[in-house]
Amino acid sequence: MELLERRDTNAVAHLKMNAPARLNALSDEMLAELQSQFDALAGDTSIRAIILSGEGKAFCAGHDLKQMTSGRQAPDGGKTYFKDLFDRCATMMQTIQKLPQPVIAQVHGIATAAGCQLVATCDMAVAAQSTRFGVNGVNIGLFCSTPMVALSRNIPRKQAFEMLTTGQFIDTDRALSLGLINRAVPEAELASATTELAQTVASKLGAAVKIGKQAFYEQLQMPLDQAYAFTGDVMVQNMLHRDTEEGISAFLEKRDPDWSQ
Amino acid sequence: MELLERRDTNAVAHLKMNAPARLNALSDEMLAELQSQFDALAGDTSIRAIILSGEGKAFCAGHDLKQMTSGRQAPDGGKTYFKDLFDRCATMMQTIQKLPQPVIAQVHGIATAAGCQLVATCDMAVAAQSTRFGVNGVNIGLFCSTPMVALSRNIPRKQAFEMLTTGQFIDTDRALSLGLINRAVPEAELASATTELAQTVASKLGAAVKIGKQAFYEQLQMPLDQAYAFTGDVMVQNMLHRDTEEGISAFLEKRDPDWSQ
Amino acid sequence: MELLERRDTNAVAHLKMNAPARLNALSDEMLAELQSQFDALAGDTSIRAIILSGEGKAFCAGHDLKQMTSGRQAPDGGKTYFKDLFDRCATMMQTIQKLPQPVIAQVHGIATAAGCQLVATCDMAVAAQSTRFGVNGVNIGLFCSTPMVALSRNIPRKQAFEMLTTGQFIDTDRALSLGLINRAVPEAELASATTELAQTVASKLGAAVKIGKQAFYEQLQMPLDQAYAFTGDVMVQNMLHRDTEEGISAFLEKRDPDWSQ
Repeated sequence: MELLERRDTNAVAHLKMNAPARLNALSDEMLAELQSQFDALAGDTSIRAIILSGEGKAFCAGHDLKQMTSGRQAPDGGKTYFKDLFDRCATMMQTIQKLPQPVIAQVHGIATAAGCQLVATCDMAVAAQSTRFGVNGVNIGLFCSTPMVALSRNIPRKQAFEMLTTGQFIDTDRALSLGLINRAVPEAELASATTELAQTVASKLGAAVKIGKQAFYEQLQMPLDQAYAFTGDVMVQNMLHRDTEEGISAFLEKRDPDWSQ
Repeated sequence: MELLERRDTNAVAHLKMNAPARLNALSDEMLAELQSQFDALAGDTSIRAIILSGEGKAFCAGHDLKQMTSGRQAPDGGKTYFKDLFDRCATMMQTIQKLPQPVIAQVHGIATAAGCQLVATCDMAVAAQSTRFGVNGVNIGLFCSTPMVALSRNIPRKQAFEMLTTGQFIDTDRALSLGLINRAVPEAELASATTELAQTVASKLGAAVKIGKQAFYEQLQMPLDQAYAFTGDVMVQNMLHRDTEEGISAFLEKRDPDWSQ
Repeated sequence: MELLERRDTNAVAHLKMNAPARLNALSDEMLAELQSQFDALAGDTSIRAIILSGEGKAFCAGHDLKQMTSGRQAPDGGKTYFKDLFDRCATMMQTIQKLPQPVIAQVHGIATAAGCQLVATCDMAVAAQSTRFGVNGVNIGLFCSTPMVALSRNIPRKQAFEMLTTGQFIDTDRALSLGLINRAVPEAELASATTELAQTVASKLGAAVKIGKQAFYEQLQMPLDQAYAFTGDVMVQNMLHRDTEEGISAFLEKRDPDWSQ
């Protein structure tokens, strides 16, 4: 049994976190596996979309508190270990956004703390209707400060603040209306709905999606004039792709593009 | 027949894109007309609100792909032309936000790619209930990177990402709930509802709306303390307007303001 | 009768604006009282949540227009006074966000102009179902430029723009769906619902909430990589709190934490 399983189907890589007994906690080992797989996928041009799911009762319950507590045995009380842990976790999260392929979270059960951060970080998310989301670290005295970075860039601030300071969970209806997830479906349809979304994305020209995804997060952080200057260049680059020329020609000639070469 | 018609009524300028056979595509000519009219309106103090609509089946279907394809004949494969085209388009979009008057998109049919960008860029938007919105360039291998600048500043990021990478359309219910438009009305009431909104805005003190609109977009890009320092100065300036003094006096004396001078 | 009443119950400070005849306008005196109380609360470790409400028919109707008009008698037409007034108001608003304790607006009646800004500025807001919200200064020729700073950081931009330029009010259903408030309850349950939310927050570890609230607003203004570097350090700091160690241990041992010391 691998900690993180990967199965590729039709240009879609499906990663499944496989530590159900620990609710797929982001242990040192799980973080390393995720980082390693994402790094491998970054250069894999055969893959055009990625699904991330979890085995067992939960999508992901956040950091591994037992392992973190062990870290306190170090002479510095764990300070160096914790710093390194949050750095590795933040690097993994940012790697998801930097990947050329869109990453879709396939969420069920619970997504809490860094598990909720993972949902917020993925480019899109599909959830089973019974899923509950929370950034509930505050309940044990550990404010979800790093999860908040991703969460507060997904949903309005008063609602993010409420989740963070009350530790209360929200259901999929609320997650949908706040913008934390893209779709909520019956549990029985979760896998097929997520796969369908992934296949839709994978059917597009990979070079265009790659160029667009990278520009998406970069331009969001720029003032308007810079964002336009930057994406204008991206559009020129995109226009000069041979496959884009073919795509536009096919559209004007009312035929399907031939992107097979 | 003019490419861009302008008709003024009661301090409201109504611009209508008039290339129905090309679904009001943003051709070089249409961009030039829009830029020219907006530039003229910037200094026209008789106009206090602007409506932008499209003739025919669509509000606007984005760039003119046929014209862009012709541009590929240049020795550099179109690179210089494309760069210039996206620059002109971005300048036109930013001109809308810099205008002293609020600009309202009156949307029907479809608003796709740069047409959807136009909706996102206008200060407000009223749509016929059957309108569909999309940033579907990805379907032909041309990611909507410049439209994304406006779209991702209007709606939550996961939903923007989904539209951009799936190329799928959203209806007015979804556009309303995401914040892309302000109102959805039956098609038969589209013109009157948009005009009513424009007249409401036009009935306000133009100097106050001008000062406020300009500050709106500027402060959005500032850190909180700078935003407050900046808008505090704007408020002082606004308070010292003769017409504002009259407006406040009238309010305190429970009478209508006399802004006729 | 004090202008701003304070009553403490179970680690929650309840501030009530008490100028019902003036709809709790933010006069020079009211601003001074709010600033003074917030400054006192900043260092009061016995208080872990704050409620802000208003006596009478309205939560708060914004600036005191009568007092502002008197300010025009100065040789400079009020310029110095207005500048100072907006500075003091902005400082008070920013003090709310810098307080270690979450501040909850308990809103009823109307919240207009700087009163709506106060709602937008508080970390959370609970409103009676009949409450109406507006940034209606434009109706008297004074665009709500400073309220817009807080409002436009709470709700989507097209909807903020509409409120600012039409001066029209929104009801609690709309305020909820836009993200301006966290909860709408029947008027009879307003006090109890707000108190319940405050008590929930006050039941958490104060040190964790303090660390988290401060980081919340700071990280929102940072690019993603900086936000993660910053909050990573915050998490390490939080982990090294004695009470957090106890909180995590208690969780792993399935018992209640002992935070009494």
